[in-house]
Amino acid sequence: MTHTETTETRTTETRTTETPATKTPVTVLGLGPMGRALAAAFVEAGHPTTVWNRTSGKAAELAEKGAHVAAGVAEAAAASPLVVVCVLDHEAVRAITGPAAEALRGRTLLNLTSTAAGHARETAAWAAEHGIGHLDGAIMTPTTTIGGPDAVYLYSGPQELHERHAEALAALGGTGTYLGADPGLAGAYDASLLDFFWTSVSGYVHALALARAEGVKPTDLAPFARNIGTLMASVTHALAEEVEHGRYAGDDSNIRSVHAAMTHILHAADAHGLDSGVMRAAKALADRAVADGHGEAAISRLTETVARPSS
Amino acid sequence: MTHTETTETRTTETRTTETPATKTPVTVLGLGPMGRALAAAFVEAGHPTTVWNRTSGKAAELAEKGAHVAAGVAEAAAASPLVVVCVLDHEAVRAITGPAAEALRGRTLLNLTSTAAGHARETAAWAAEHGIGHLDGAIMTPTTTIGGPDAVYLYSGPQELHERHAEALAALGGTGTYLGADPGLAGAYDASLLDFFWTSVSGYVHALALARAEGVKPTDLAPFARNIGTLMASVTHALAEEVEHGRYAGDDSNIRSVHAAMTHILHAADAHGLDSGVMRAAKALADRAVADGHGEAAISRLTETVARPSS
Repeated sequence: MTHTETTETRTTETRTTETPATKTPVTVLGLGPMGRALAAAFVEAGHPTTVWNRTSGKAAELAEKGAHVAAGVAEAAAASPLVVVCVLDHEAVRAITGPAAEALRGRTLLNLTSTAAGHARETAAWAAEHGIGHLDGAIMTPTTTIGGPDAVYLYSGPQELHERHAEALAALGGTGTYLGADPGLAGAYDASLLDFFWTSVSGYVHALALARAEGVKPTDLAPFARNIGTLMASVTHALAEEVEHGRYAGDDSNIRSVHAAMTHILHAADAHGLDSGVMRAAKALADRAVADGHGEAAISRLTETVARPSS
Repeated sequence: MTHTETTETRTTETRTTETPATKTPVTVLGLGPMGRALAAAFVEAGHPTTVWNRTSGKAAELAEKGAHVAAGVAEAAAASPLVVVCVLDHEAVRAITGPAAEALRGRTLLNLTSTAAGHARETAAWAAEHGIGHLDGAIMTPTTTIGGPDAVYLYSGPQELHERHAEALAALGGTGTYLGADPGLAGAYDASLLDFFWTSVSGYVHALALARAEGVKPTDLAPFARNIGTLMASVTHALAEEVEHGRYAGDDSNIRSVHAAMTHILHAADAHGLDSGVMRAAKALADRAVADGHGEAAISRLTETVARPSS
C-alpha cells in the first residue's frame, strides 16, 4: 500500500514537470459515476479541472486528486473555456445550464449526457441564442473505459469547436469520432446503437433462460453465443447496404424462413412457460411483412416494415 | 475456365486414388437447399452417396456428380449405415421415416432438421423402439458454408454413434461439437442460439430504421454497429456466469439504468412513428423486473424474469 502510494506520488510529480502550464482548463458539471470518471481523466491528463455537482458529497475524491470544487454552476462554468456536462437526462442538462447561460457565454458546452437528436438540436439552438458554443457527444462504452484505450466517443456540432478542444478530448482516451455539423447526429447514433445493443442483450437473456430450461448450463452455451455475436458483427455492413440501396433479394434466407425459425423458438419457449414477449414482438413484425407480401424478401427488409407501422 | 476445369478433374482423380474403397456409404433424405449441400459434401469427399427426395426434380445435379438416386425412402435407407435426414420440420421427419422404420433398423439416423429438444427426444424414443440408432444435429451456419471450413455443427445422442460416424461427419467440413448423450441438447442449443441471433437482427433492423429516420445513412452506422456486435460477443461469458451463479450485483450497469436507456430509445423512435414493438417488449420485461424490486440488479437478472412470467 505504501509502495503504491509512493509510485502514485512520483507519477504525479513527473506529470507535473512535463505538463505545460497551458493545458486547457476544463469544467465538469455532474458527478455521477460517468461524470466522476470524466473529471478524473481530465485531472490525470494534467488539465486544471473544476467540478460541480448538485449534491456536494461526490467531489471529495476528485478534490484529493487536485480538482477544484466550485460552489455553484456559474462559478464552475466561468472557470473554463470547455464546460462538460454529464447528468441524468436532457431535462437535467437544461435545468443546470439554463440559469448559468450568462456564465457560459463565449465558452463551449460539451454535452456528454445521453441525449436524443431532437433534444440536442434544441440545446444547440438555445446555446446559439446565448452566444454559447455547443457540441453534443455520446459515450458508447462503460465508465471503466474512460481515460483508457477502449473508450469510444461520438461528437457532433460545429467542426471548429471540435478541433479547438481536440487536446482536452484526447484526455478522455480511446477513440473519438466527429460525425458532422448537425448537433443531433451523436444522439441519433447513440440511440440507434443502444437500440441494437439492448435488444441483443434482451435476446441473450431470453436465450440463457431457454437454454437453462432445457438443462443447458449458461456457461456451456456462452462460447457458441460468442460466435453468434461475432456473426452478427460480420453481417452489419451487408444488411446496411441492402437497406441503403433497397435491394432485398432474400437469396440466402428470407423473411418467411426466419418467421419459421421464430415460430420454432416460441414453441420451445412456450413449452417451458417463459416470458417471450420480445421474440413474440419480433415475430409479429415478420408476420406483418409476410402479410404485406414480402415473405420472400431478405430479412433486412423488416427495416421498411418498422418504418411504416400498420394503422 | 479451362484451366480451372483441368485442376478440378485432377483433384478428383487424386482423391479417387487416395480414398480407400471403404468410405462409409451415406444416404441423404430431403433435397432442399441444405440437403443438397450436405449430399454434395458427401459426394465430394468420396462417400458412396444415395439421395432421395419427395419430388424427384432436385436430384439431377447430384446424380451427375455421382450420387445414386433412390426410388423410395426404404430403398434409400437400406443403402447406407448412416442415414441423414434434413427436411422442413419435425413433422416432415416423422412422416418420412415412420413408414421406413424396418429399413432403418440397425442403421444410424442422423437428423439435421432444425428440431426442438422435446421433438428430438421423441424421435430418439421412437428410434430406440425400432432398433434404430439416433443422433440429433443442428447446423448453425448457412448452406454456402457446408463442406467448407466455416460450417458449424452441433450433435447430441449416444457418444458411440457420434464416434462411429466421425469420418462421414468430417466430410461436412467446419467444426462439429458433440454436446452429450441427451438427444435434446443439439435442439436446445440451436433454439437458444437462434433466439439470440434473430432477436439481435430484429434490434439491428430497428436501429437502421431509427438511424435513417434521423438522417443517418445505414452504411455510416454499420461500422459502429459492428463494434456493438463485437461488444455483445465479448460480454456473453460474463453474463452467463452471472446467471449460472445467480450473482446479479449490477455495479457497472443495472436494470434501472438500462430501463432509462430503453425509455430514451422509445422516445426517439416514437417521435418518428416507428413500429417499436420489440423494444417495447424488452422494456416491459425491464418494467416487470423493476416492479419486482430488482432495479438495482445487473441486467443479466432479466433471465430470472423471463423464467418466471407474471400470472
